[in-house]
Amino acid sequence: MPESAATAARDILTGLHDIMAGRGSTQAKLDRVVDLIAESMASEVCSIYVLRDGALELYATHGLNKEAVHVTRLGLGEGLVGTIAEEGRILNLDEASSHPQYAYRPETGEEDFHSFAGIPIVRREEPIGVLTVQHEDTRKYLDVEIEALQTVAMVLSELLANAGIADGTRGRNRETGAQRLAGLKLVTGMARGKAVFHQPKVTVEHTVAEDTEAERARVYAAFRKMREQIDHMTRDAEFGVGGEHEEILETYKMFAYDEGWSRRINEAIDSGLTAEAAIERVQQRTRARMRDIDDPLLAERMHDLEDLSNRLLRIVAGRVGTAAQTGLQEDTILIARNLGPAELLDYDRRRLKGVVLQEGSLTAHVTIVARAMGVPVVGRIEDIRHIVAEGDTILVDGDQGIVIVRPGRGIAATFDQRMATSQKRREEYAAIRDKKAETRDGTRVTLMVNAGLADDAAMLDASGAEGIGLFRTEFQFLVAATLPGRESQLKLYREVLDAAGDRPVVFRTLDIGGDKALPYLMDEKDEAENPAMGWRALRLSLDRAALMKAQARALVEAAGGRTLKVMFPMVSEPWEFEEARALFEEQVEWCHSRKRMLPTRIEYGCMLEVPSLAETLDILLPQLDFLSIGTNDLTQFLFAADRAEPRLAERYDWLSPAILRFLKRIADQANEAGVPVRICGEMGGRPLEAMALIGIGIENFSITPAAMGPIKAMVRSLDAEKVRKKMRKVLAKPPRDVRRSLTDWAKRQKVDLG
Amino acid sequence: MPESAATAARDILTGLHDIMAGRGSTQAKLDRVVDLIAESMASEVCSIYVLRDGALELYATHGLNKEAVHVTRLGLGEGLVGTIAEEGRILNLDEASSHPQYAYRPETGEEDFHSFAGIPIVRREEPIGVLTVQHEDTRKYLDVEIEALQTVAMVLSELLANAGIADGTRGRNRETGAQRLAGLKLVTGMARGKAVFHQPKVTVEHTVAEDTEAERARVYAAFRKMREQIDHMTRDAEFGVGGEHEEILETYKMFAYDEGWSRRINEAIDSGLTAEAAIERVQQRTRARMRDIDDPLLAERMHDLEDLSNRLLRIVAGRVGTAAQTGLQEDTILIARNLGPAELLDYDRRRLKGVVLQEGSLTAHVTIVARAMGVPVVGRIEDIRHIVAEGDTILVDGDQGIVIVRPGRGIAATFDQRMATSQKRREEYAAIRDKKAETRDGTRVTLMVNAGLADDAAMLDASGAEGIGLFRTEFQFLVAATLPGRESQLKLYREVLDAAGDRPVVFRTLDIGGDKALPYLMDEKDEAENPAMGWRALRLSLDRAALMKAQARALVEAAGGRTLKVMFPMVSEPWEFEEARALFEEQVEWCHSRKRMLPTRIEYGCMLEVPSLAETLDILLPQLDFLSIGTNDLTQFLFAADRAEPRLAERYDWLSPAILRFLKRIADQANEAGVPVRICGEMGGRPLEAMALIGIGIENFSITPAAMGPIKAMVRSLDAEKVRKKMRKVLAKPPRDVRRSLTDWAKRQKVDLG
Repeated sequence: MPESAATAARDILTGLHDIMAGRGSTQAKLDRVVDLIAESMASEVCSIYVLRDGALELYATHGLNKEAVHVTRLGLGEGLVGTIAEEGRILNLDEASSHPQYAYRPETGEEDFHSFAGIPIVRREEPIGVLTVQHEDTRKYLDVEIEALQTVAMVLSELLANAGIADGTRGRNRETGAQRLAGLKLVTGMARGKAVFHQPKVTVEHTVAEDTEAERARVYAAFRKMREQIDHMTRDAEFGVGGEHEEILETYKMFAYDEGWSRRINEAIDSGLTAEAAIERVQQRTRARMRDIDDPLLAERMHDLEDLSNRLLRIVAGRVGTAAQTGLQEDTILIARNLGPAELLDYDRRRLKGVVLQEGSLTAHVTIVARAMGVPVVGRIEDIRHIVAEGDTILVDGDQGIVIVRPGRGIAATFDQRMATSQKRREEYAAIRDKKAETRDGTRVTLMVNAGLADDAAMLDASGAEGIGLFRTEFQFLVAATLPGRESQLKLYREVLDAAGDRPVVFRTLDIGGDKALPYLMDEKDEAENPAMGWRALRLSLDRAALMKAQARALVEAAGGRTLKVMFPMVSEPWEFEEARALFEEQVEWCHSRKRMLPTRIEYGCMLEVPSLAETLDILLPQLDFLSIGTNDLTQFLFAADRAEPRLAERYDWLSPAILRFLKRIADQANEAGVPVRICGEMGGRPLEAMALIGIGIENFSITPAAMGPIKAMVRSLDAEKVRKKMRKVLAKPPRDVRRSLTDWAKRQKVDLG
Repeated sequence: MPESAATAARDILTGLHDIMAGRGSTQAKLDRVVDLIAESMASEVCSIYVLRDGALELYATHGLNKEAVHVTRLGLGEGLVGTIAEEGRILNLDEASSHPQYAYRPETGEEDFHSFAGIPIVRREEPIGVLTVQHEDTRKYLDVEIEALQTVAMVLSELLANAGIADGTRGRNRETGAQRLAGLKLVTGMARGKAVFHQPKVTVEHTVAEDTEAERARVYAAFRKMREQIDHMTRDAEFGVGGEHEEILETYKMFAYDEGWSRRINEAIDSGLTAEAAIERVQQRTRARMRDIDDPLLAERMHDLEDLSNRLLRIVAGRVGTAAQTGLQEDTILIARNLGPAELLDYDRRRLKGVVLQEGSLTAHVTIVARAMGVPVVGRIEDIRHIVAEGDTILVDGDQGIVIVRPGRGIAATFDQRMATSQKRREEYAAIRDKKAETRDGTRVTLMVNAGLADDAAMLDASGAEGIGLFRTEFQFLVAATLPGRESQLKLYREVLDAAGDRPVVFRTLDIGGDKALPYLMDEKDEAENPAMGWRALRLSLDRAALMKAQARALVEAAGGRTLKVMFPMVSEPWEFEEARALFEEQVEWCHSRKRMLPTRIEYGCMLEVPSLAETLDILLPQLDFLSIGTNDLTQFLFAADRAEPRLAERYDWLSPAILRFLKRIADQANEAGVPVRICGEMGGRPLEAMALIGIGIENFSITPAAMGPIKAMVRSLDAEKVRKKMRKVLAKPPRDVRRSLTDWAKRQKVDLG
């Protein structure tokens, strides 16, 4: 054994380079390779097994019986060699025959040799062969020896791949079966498509360097670029752009500047590898070392290093963009560790069918934006980027939080059927798109949509909505890297109003803070124990009036010559509404004094989503043009039940007497005061719930575009007077199970519940 | 300069040891010391300045003008030497005269010397002198040289201290002035006492080792012990005992097993230091290196290492217990980074007046327990353990979240006056302790107390309460390291009932989960986005019935032969109450079948703290024996305003029309149904609020013991009929500021508001 692994590896690499560049059959080359290795490593036996037709065939040997070549075959998992290939891990034994997996093959003559080391030969993360060395005496191989063999195995993988004799180089062998993965439901909906990695994976094609100096220079430049990127991301993260958490960035930074890592890569290059192969080689070594450490903290860090290693590879290989830049070719399921909201918006909305994230949370901005785009998302699927290969078929079931990778025919057919059924329903809904939402007995129901993105307004025609009942102005803030200025707000509002034409648009002022934090606006310290009940929405807007003034001015100017409808979120007491309105009136005054064109009329409304507000409607209603009930937040406060808490998801029902009675009291008061009342929230988008709401006197809804069809179909099949009567009965003496009672009633009445 | 700093330091230390052990005056010894150092370090000048009467006096020199000794004096902050002492930091200059702080003293003859290095000599974190070396040529001193000088300075501090010639060794010089520190209000109340560190600080007394081998062995043993402790704490943390966060423990563990740290300590021992001095020396070096790195993440880690270093020092010095083991000698303010609830209960309640924490949060168990004990706590005071010295006078103002360290006379007097006023009021309240809580017009009000600790029941007499209106059974769980078994619950409940005698005790079943997490019960994964609205209290109890069954059995058995009053927290819908009661009835059945003595009667009640429950009282009230309104949680849900969020603290008022109207509706319904209704929560403990509550028909209160006096005094000065009339008017047409309106009214009516 020469003095160092690097020297040994370099000797072999130089030799291999010559062999590969020279003439001769693959067999002849491999025969020369085992001789070369045995000699350089001073080992008595060196053999190469190649995976062919599902078995590991002894393909070349120095030191074993030559007659065994092409004769000895071991299945995956069979004997030491089969175990190494199947598990993808190294074996290093001082006494091979005492290993439980040892399988003796008399034709090889290997009974003379005691010590044994075997290294998997891997291509594109699949095993394609095994490299072994054996010694007569009983000894363990040193770490440096094993490492030299790993480097050799890496080069052999290229040689075997070029020769095209191993299975793995012709197709995937492992984990091609269907896999069903359960994650966190982030955005509902079903989708099917081919896997595309947000950050493409790089496969190392060439392992042996032509010019070591040049490779060193490439890695040096790549490191510099990567460090710049990380520094840049860290700065960006402070402004809330990226999808990466601060903690991850800290770790990235630590690794990116880690001298040990770059030194090991340089050592690998010194041994004769290309920059790509050296990065991969070091990564393999780290992976192998970490594998046996059962520490979740380290495993996490390992993922970070893997990310960074891939990033370095992409830079060296010149594949620097995300998949969005390459463009999507077909229906796509995007695979990522995490995404920023702006990154998501970069993708072609027609091709992007679903997203699967390794991380992700219900309150992440990317989730909020994906929900608005109607793209199903499943999150918290560990290791997804290792389970899936680019191009795999993926089914995403956002309703169940399930991802199916490489589905079998049966599963795919069932899934397609479910998707087809909903497609058929969608066609039926499209047919009634331009019909009125009117009950059988002539009650006119107004159906508007919730929106928040610039092109939502342009899609009003497609949904058949009568307007935008809730425009979430915070979306512009969530996807931006820095605080959107008044001018860019003005531009967006004007675009939305233009696109909506005659149809009304109700702008809700910023609902930020709480779970919709804007990093460029808030300190980390601002993190609250219970963000939903925190300093958010109108509370924050009134305390930071400059922000609200800018928005008010932009809205007033954008609506010049038109009606402006504006409402305030999270109003808890009447004075908050009064202060907010006064702030708007000030801006109107200002615009007037500067001779700007004013709105022809301004209508002010309130969101009712904080229970306390219901107690002071006698004071508030006379001041309102309209009232909107935000059922999502309202019901979570009424029941003190966080809607993101999975253990409470099934506990309380939107059709509970408590919610319906509470809402009826509000509807009655508002109707009596002559103030229109509208439901904005998921509750209004569900046919049975919407039916119950009509039954308690609510006839205005602002819902998600996807719910337009089902709700209109329900409305057109309903007798309003009958449901009012039914609801009076239900609320006077609630049955044990209101949902069942209403469902049964609806069935008897032939109400279309979708 | 000898080859290594360690060798140089060791040479000097050996010499110093001889000098210190030998005869002669301090002056003679110091003269020999400067010669020794100059020689060992091959420097042309070596001088020692000693802080005497507030100035740094040149005390000994090798190389400077001997006439300048005892003549040259520099104020703190004056010249290079004064700067070093004042800032406590090293200067290392190649050209001394070009430093902006350079002050030339002709008598010294130092104009010949260009390079300069000065090291502060520190004793008990106070500067007592400066050690300098100078060279003729222009050069920077190497790190190894500086380090050797630091070691020498450490030994010199011992020599100077023993000689008693420096100021610092006779008393503190720095930061003895008053300091006002603002933190986080955790538990209200005012307190005055002497600072006691929960984990005592160790002062290094002896620096030069007699036997290096022995010191090595001591450090080795201490490391082993410390690692054991950390491992133990980590295990404990999994069971939720300690006050330390998991994250801190991770860092502790990392450092505790850090080879670099132990190696550096061993090197310092090799240079001749004692184990204590070596630990301190390494810590000093780390501190100095970190000082210039402006990275908050590292600063945090630095605190952790400092903690661990202190721990190692305590172990080596044999001071292993907390201050609780030593016992408190006088009125004490406890200073700690953090505390576990059990650690707090270890202290003598009579002597422990207040707690100041570097960390701490409103929802930490220690805060909950301290609140129950009535011990004021202020948290999140950064660096408190460095600002305060053991024995300093500390004023804690938990109402304002202010801590005053070493107050001047004026401040202390004002504080005392405020405390005296409240003391006088307390005496007045004591005088009416045994009188009835009855209004002037004869309305009888029931005043009970909230409790949760074993000896709370024993203190009923002292407060004059008519019973325990809310016994928080979760306290036993919060302070325990492992799940309290049925037997220990039974024992506690029986003790409480025995101590209460004839007075009623209302047991509330477990309110855990949410912000009162029990680590031994829950996964880390269980962390919710909005814990207050999470899976907690009855929700958790019904889902994990085994836990509730054990408690039900313990309560039923404990109340054998007596009346059992039990209520359920966080009931949101009537079925939850019904399920909980059924679960209790099952246990009664079981006890009956086993011939256990049964309670003579069981009264079942509900906490109303979730707004939705108010909507279904028509269904619930007929099943209840009593109803308790938990105003703390209720108001935070009604207003969707987290009470721990400082930016919302002043925003909504308990005397808002929304809350009062909501409560009146409940009171009216309950009174009509003949179900007693009681207020449990802070609102009932405030005189003005309690007055308003009486005005809307609520006449039962369960409050904190400290509020008994003020509320009884208010009740006895009130005309109930008049306040009812006032409240009808207020609620029908609420004035803009209800609080002011009620305060004015109370003043006119001469209601005692405390």
